Amino acid sequence: MARISLSQSEFEKRIQRIREELAKRQLDALYLTNGTSIFYVTGFAHIATERPAALIVPLSGELTFMGPVLERDHIKELAPVVKRIFTYLDYPGEKHPIDLIATWLSEIGLADKAIGIDNPLGASGVQGYAGPQISDKLPQASFTRAKDIVENMRVIKSEEEIAVIKEASRWGTVAHRYLQKFTKPGLWEVEISLRAALEASKEMKKKLGRKYKKTIWGDAPARAGFRGQVGEHSAVPHSISIGREIRKGDVLVTGASSDVAGYKAELERTMIVGKPSEKQKKYFEIMVKMQDAALRTFGPDVKCSDVDKAQIEVARKYGVTEYLLHHTGHGVGLEGHERPFVDQGNDEFLKPGMVVSCEPGIYVPGFAGFRHSDTVVITKDGAERITLYPRDLKSLTIPA
Amino acid sequence: MARISLSQSEFEKRIQRIREELAKRQLDALYLTNGTSIFYVTGFAHIATERPAALIVPLSGELTFMGPVLERDHIKELAPVVKRIFTYLDYPGEKHPIDLIATWLSEIGLADKAIGIDNPLGASGVQGYAGPQISDKLPQASFTRAKDIVENMRVIKSEEEIAVIKEASRWGTVAHRYLQKFTKPGLWEVEISLRAALEASKEMKKKLGRKYKKTIWGDAPARAGFRGQVGEHSAVPHSISIGREIRKGDVLVTGASSDVAGYKAELERTMIVGKPSEKQKKYFEIMVKMQDAALRTFGPDVKCSDVDKAQIEVARKYGVTEYLLHHTGHGVGLEGHERPFVDQGNDEFLKPGMVVSCEPGIYVPGFAGFRHSDTVVITKDGAERITLYPRDLKSLTIPA
Repeated sequence: MARISLSQSEFEKRIQRIREELAKRQLDALYLTNGTSIFYVTGFAHIATERPAALIVPLSGELTFMGPVLERDHIKELAPVVKRIFTYLDYPGEKHPIDLIATWLSEIGLADKAIGIDNPLGASGVQGYAGPQISDKLPQASFTRAKDIVENMRVIKSEEEIAVIKEASRWGTVAHRYLQKFTKPGLWEVEISLRAALEASKEMKKKLGRKYKKTIWGDAPARAGFRGQVGEHSAVPHSISIGREIRKGDVLVTGASSDVAGYKAELERTMIVGKPSEKQKKYFEIMVKMQDAALRTFGPDVKCSDVDKAQIEVARKYGVTEYLLHHTGHGVGLEGHERPFVDQGNDEFLKPGMVVSCEPGIYVPGFAGFRHSDTVVITKDGAERITLYPRDLKSLTIPA
Repeated sequence: MARISLSQSEFEKRIQRIREELAKRQLDALYLTNGTSIFYVTGFAHIATERPAALIVPLSGELTFMGPVLERDHIKELAPVVKRIFTYLDYPGEKHPIDLIATWLSEIGLADKAIGIDNPLGASGVQGYAGPQISDKLPQASFTRAKDIVENMRVIKSEEEIAVIKEASRWGTVAHRYLQKFTKPGLWEVEISLRAALEASKEMKKKLGRKYKKTIWGDAPARAGFRGQVGEHSAVPHSISIGREIRKGDVLVTGASSDVAGYKAELERTMIVGKPSEKQKKYFEIMVKMQDAALRTFGPDVKCSDVDKAQIEVARKYGVTEYLLHHTGHGVGLEGHERPFVDQGNDEFLKPGMVVSCEPGIYVPGFAGFRHSDTVVITKDGAERITLYPRDLKSLTIPA
């Protein structure tokens, strides 16, 4: 059976580890405003808005949510680990939510305590939010930046996390297969992407059953697309969108992913429409060699920087360093990018349970870009590529 | 001809207004890290990541971008108002990007100047980013919070902005029409939404032509869906997703939107699958009366709080105040929510050129939620509802 959710004990373990870290740092509570962090600790995924929302993890005592009333029944349903809820009607309200949160923190005994916080505002601060810092409202408390407590924990994935990431990889692969099938000269990238998302998401739902639902707000459950990396715009890594239709001769850089229990895997491929030119072939093959070099280097107790240097070395050998626009990769899990960063400037060691993307790229301005991205799990003995999709030019050539 | 982009002079005017505000506040430059703000000032939309990116608007002299090299050709293409670009290869790099930005700020003469900044980090700080505050790196400069400069400007929309928001409203309406057409018992909400996005986006592209492209990374060009507000979950305003299929008897709360030059309009409707029950009818009609009361109250020089109080008054009259989970609405434009907030606690006056949502809702736990949302433009003489989609129960009943 595919794992499509995390067990409650997974969240309980996370809370326990936060408490150990709070004790170590002599903090009485952790105050989280970041939506991803709140989700990681509780399983409650929400849409962050201007309305301040905070999760309080005390060293001992009940996990407490303080936020807008429109999340009341939502958090009750999704997060049994949260035992106490304080709500306000809306922002800015007749009394500012930060004033209410200060009052509630006093009510639960934290008015003069040492509190770790991920954002000095005491709120996510997005979408037109304005307000004073929570520290101004509780002068007897001491607030310390502690954004890293949860972020550090997220770097090494548990067995359950790796299981859902592998399942996410499976459905990203399905979406990419549809994308490749639907790609044809004359079509707009968006039409192809939406068709792929529709077919892959339907197939995913059919297979995983009624218990499956999308966890994170945003994209389709399974999706694949081009993000504007079409033809000459494939040389712009974050191109977003292109107006023209796909043509014979275009290099396409794709991306595919899915949402399983809020986790994703990353799969990207370079495809060529019609018979590849010699120049296209040349850069494609160098890019694959760069990716091979990085893939070979991944493993436990290897420095992130050494992996990145391995692919840069290949680029140097083939004289394409001027066309590098980014490093090898980044951590994969809940966010688009997360720690660790596989970068020549990061001497952090890879450890079993880390999950990272491997995606060296070559971008020739005005011509085309070339990048595959695979998701790699660092194991005790080496590294496992979990995005099983062909990487060779023949398999990635679109008939035209 | 529909307006689908803003003119360059629109951006030049915005820069001029920022400079006037800088002079007023005795600041030498504005340092922006927020992606929406950078887009508003320059027309450059990008995907914000852990890689620090900054736009510097000096009181006089050239607009300067400092950020990752993967955005170099992208910003050159999209933002002719940006005249100078400094880039680094990637994050964290052998030298941290914030150190480089500090050096570049010195190079352009700001090392000992007064700088307004939207985020004390000097970076958006998302996705695993860690780094010191930019102020630690430039001790001779003075940094002042000035996030509000751009946010204040965004509150009143220009004629060009209102034109693109109206066009966005047109395509959100098309997407909603497809959504309603495709909604049937037995289908999963995601399948219906993706089909609606596909058909509406294709139609939009066909009509607007090759010049149209999606501006902001994320959703489909035109889209509509349910966000998990299906059946008993329609009582959870930000429900995100539901696993079961749609059934006869369900109340559905929808949402539709599109992207025209980065702007959107908001359209939401309550639909009922099959013949509405008496109880469903009752709450639906009260909700419409609440929305009517708010719609009647909108106008220039009316307080936001008075609009919100008007709908609360109707809720009180019908004894449903315990089922209110949010205020009347929020500003509409570039972000999902923005200023001004139409809230009983906000005594700000509505002014011509403001664009806001009007969406009072009733949420009966375990039963259903009821909400329409329309986008309203405040004019010199009153208010114009620009989301022209039926609001009555008969039009919103799905045959089943």
